Amino acid sequence: MQSKNLNIIGAGLVGSLLSIYLAKRGHKVNVFERRPDIRKNRISAGKSINLALSDRGWKGLEGVGIADEIKKVGIPMKGRLIHTQDGKTNFQAYGKDGQAIYSVSRGGLNCVLMDLAEKSGVTFHFNEKCTGIDLAAGSSHFENTETKKQTTGQADHTFGTDGAFSAVRLQIQLSTDRFDYKQSYLEYGYKELRIPPVPRTLQNPSGEFALEQHALHIWPRGNFMLIALPNMDKSFTCTLFFPFEGKPSFTELNTEEKMLHFFEATFPDAVRLMPTLAKDYFSNPSSSLVTVKCFPWSYQDKFLLMGDAAHAIVPFYGQGMNCGFEDCVVLNQLMDKHSDDMKSVFAAFETTRKPNSDAIADLAVANFVEMRDRVSDPKFILQKKIETLFSQKYPDKWIPLYSMVTYSPHIPYSIALKEGEKQEAIMQKILALPGIERNWDSAEVEAEILKYLK
Amino acid sequence: MQSKNLNIIGAGLVGSLLSIYLAKRGHKVNVFERRPDIRKNRISAGKSINLALSDRGWKGLEGVGIADEIKKVGIPMKGRLIHTQDGKTNFQAYGKDGQAIYSVSRGGLNCVLMDLAEKSGVTFHFNEKCTGIDLAAGSSHFENTETKKQTTGQADHTFGTDGAFSAVRLQIQLSTDRFDYKQSYLEYGYKELRIPPVPRTLQNPSGEFALEQHALHIWPRGNFMLIALPNMDKSFTCTLFFPFEGKPSFTELNTEEKMLHFFEATFPDAVRLMPTLAKDYFSNPSSSLVTVKCFPWSYQDKFLLMGDAAHAIVPFYGQGMNCGFEDCVVLNQLMDKHSDDMKSVFAAFETTRKPNSDAIADLAVANFVEMRDRVSDPKFILQKKIETLFSQKYPDKWIPLYSMVTYSPHIPYSIALKEGEKQEAIMQKILALPGIERNWDSAEVEAEILKYLK
Repeated sequence: MQSKNLNIIGAGLVGSLLSIYLAKRGHKVNVFERRPDIRKNRISAGKSINLALSDRGWKGLEGVGIADEIKKVGIPMKGRLIHTQDGKTNFQAYGKDGQAIYSVSRGGLNCVLMDLAEKSGVTFHFNEKCTGIDLAAGSSHFENTETKKQTTGQADHTFGTDGAFSAVRLQIQLSTDRFDYKQSYLEYGYKELRIPPVPRTLQNPSGEFALEQHALHIWPRGNFMLIALPNMDKSFTCTLFFPFEGKPSFTELNTEEKMLHFFEATFPDAVRLMPTLAKDYFSNPSSSLVTVKCFPWSYQDKFLLMGDAAHAIVPFYGQGMNCGFEDCVVLNQLMDKHSDDMKSVFAAFETTRKPNSDAIADLAVANFVEMRDRVSDPKFILQKKIETLFSQKYPDKWIPLYSMVTYSPHIPYSIALKEGEKQEAIMQKILALPGIERNWDSAEVEAEILKYLK
Repeated sequence: MQSKNLNIIGAGLVGSLLSIYLAKRGHKVNVFERRPDIRKNRISAGKSINLALSDRGWKGLEGVGIADEIKKVGIPMKGRLIHTQDGKTNFQAYGKDGQAIYSVSRGGLNCVLMDLAEKSGVTFHFNEKCTGIDLAAGSSHFENTETKKQTTGQADHTFGTDGAFSAVRLQIQLSTDRFDYKQSYLEYGYKELRIPPVPRTLQNPSGEFALEQHALHIWPRGNFMLIALPNMDKSFTCTLFFPFEGKPSFTELNTEEKMLHFFEATFPDAVRLMPTLAKDYFSNPSSSLVTVKCFPWSYQDKFLLMGDAAHAIVPFYGQGMNCGFEDCVVLNQLMDKHSDDMKSVFAAFETTRKPNSDAIADLAVANFVEMRDRVSDPKFILQKKIETLFSQKYPDKWIPLYSMVTYSPHIPYSIALKEGEKQEAIMQKILALPGIERNWDSAEVEAEILKYLK
């Protein structure tokens, strides 16, 4: 196998991980990134502060040998901790004992990946904004945002991992025929808020988490919600998912008085833990939530879109990064299979991955409704109890949808979606059985599920 | 009412008609067009040669007083003339007696509209390619394709009528948040071919149409088709709608021998009338078929997308231009209603037109299946007979879908779509009645339809 010149545009999580995989295969890899080196000056990428790593993501990190290192700086979240409006809480496990998703710092993970990439021989070029692409020539044009110097990157193959608003994808949209493309926004935005650690006291000199640390906290409120994920510094990053327009909405809560009044009535137990709420609310942006679907992802054997550039999804299944890391794993497998013949690799990659990225995109949108609304519905809670019981008894017959997506990287997203639809149809029939509230754990119900599974 | 500076980007059919409406309201209108003046040098716009004008389009032309002039240079087509593979033909009327759609020349119509626009005080700027837009400033940048001179057009309000690949829309996509956008391609392309007039003879010194002139000819062949529309010079412009890939496909028919062999077996009666088939087939492009949906269509009161720029559709309902002309009629009505307060006009326009343009987009895609396949199905022919009979007897209770779309501009596309779905559901039940082939025109069947309509 021949060593090739490979360019990657975008040094985010997927681009950085990809660069390691490609360098380890013996290729010469250059990565071009629009922003400065976040390792020198921790700046926000305008994205979420933390992320939930689950098994597809771990598999990606294992492939380059840094899963253990990252696990040390992640916080396992074993389930959802639901906060009702009257201050009660209710824990819903995310899987079996020992299973958890991990809250990790986006910036921290990105830095570790870039360090390892450099150790593996990858060269990073920062402040290099992609200004244009010549698809047929396989060349990419950059302007240095500081020196304004223009350069051209020529490569045998170029990977566009430049995110939801990919410059590489735009070039494919503008200069090729028959490129299917869709960007669609939710009518909801998100805003990050903060719960700091409980202040140090004499009894508790290092401060402490203000809420249970091993959970993803949700304040479901019908058509909107607040969530919180723990950070290593014992703070929580909260995210309010909220309508842009209407009542209530970001547009409506436009004064400190209106906002505080609303929060105190709606999230009373959270507000008490948020001393900087007003400042955070009015200084942090209300960001939009986009889903991007497109096809094809490649141009000949010259360019390939991966990660969010190919398939940006909303965050409600916690799978954006995990799906992007799985892209890297799949690409690496296909390069093994096709002996780095990139024409075959690119074609196989987009054909294999497209149905799976479409599936997780749809699952992610659907999970918003589950998180903000259904999790507090007694019928839903009952459904989860029945499913959990049955899947514990028949682990070969029933893996809950959440577990297929989160803990079962051997099950493609598209299969998980299809199985999940079947399961949902069965559960709706089960929930319609008379007296199900009382006999949900009976042998009759179990027999009924087994009957439907046949 | 105040006279304003209005810019229109794109001097195609919709931009030219719009300019007349706006100039007649007393505004100062400048139109910028990327191509040269087609009146000086008839060039192809890379689009179809002729178009089918129907009642929504006529209404648009009537509003500026040129419907009669255009009618003189259009050829009424009273129905579909189906050509089966064994050379038989079958006529299916497009509506009631006296109803017809009109084959008109795209270029000719565009020239007439530009002439009238100039007479109404509109100024055209040709060879002006839009290179960028400053949405907030309301300014548009142009480069003259001949002199390379750069200019900036500043206006109170700017209309983007620059077609399916709109530069104005791209700017909205790139520089605003929460812009929903979708471009989707069929796996079929089209290629224009030609049937010339029958050569002059002593008996027939002016030549003659080679086929019935007052019909839209269709050679339906399952997953593809050939169609032909008459021109004023007694030729027909044929269009082959054909898969890009597979068997058969444009990719497969890549030699003259393969192509002729296929055509002779598939369209035997047409091939005899196509002396330039081989030349046309290999020199004319295989063009793609795109549907574009997006929202919003406006940026504040500064920019508004109209016509294909807002809602490009596939040609199978013959409604692309008609829908664009209806845009002009609706905009004009809204300017009356809101006294040219463009903030209100733009908001009302996009809200009103979006469901209707979505509906005709979906109807157009669905009609491809009807034209290429269903029209030759005996069940479908029977269905049309029953519908026609019933709608003649009960014109208030049943207007066939095709007639609602084509001859009923007072019925919005979205209502037509919904009514059409109801009608289709009823007809499927009627066609399932025992003995329907024999008693389709009986009182029982009539009573049955009346029952379902209640």
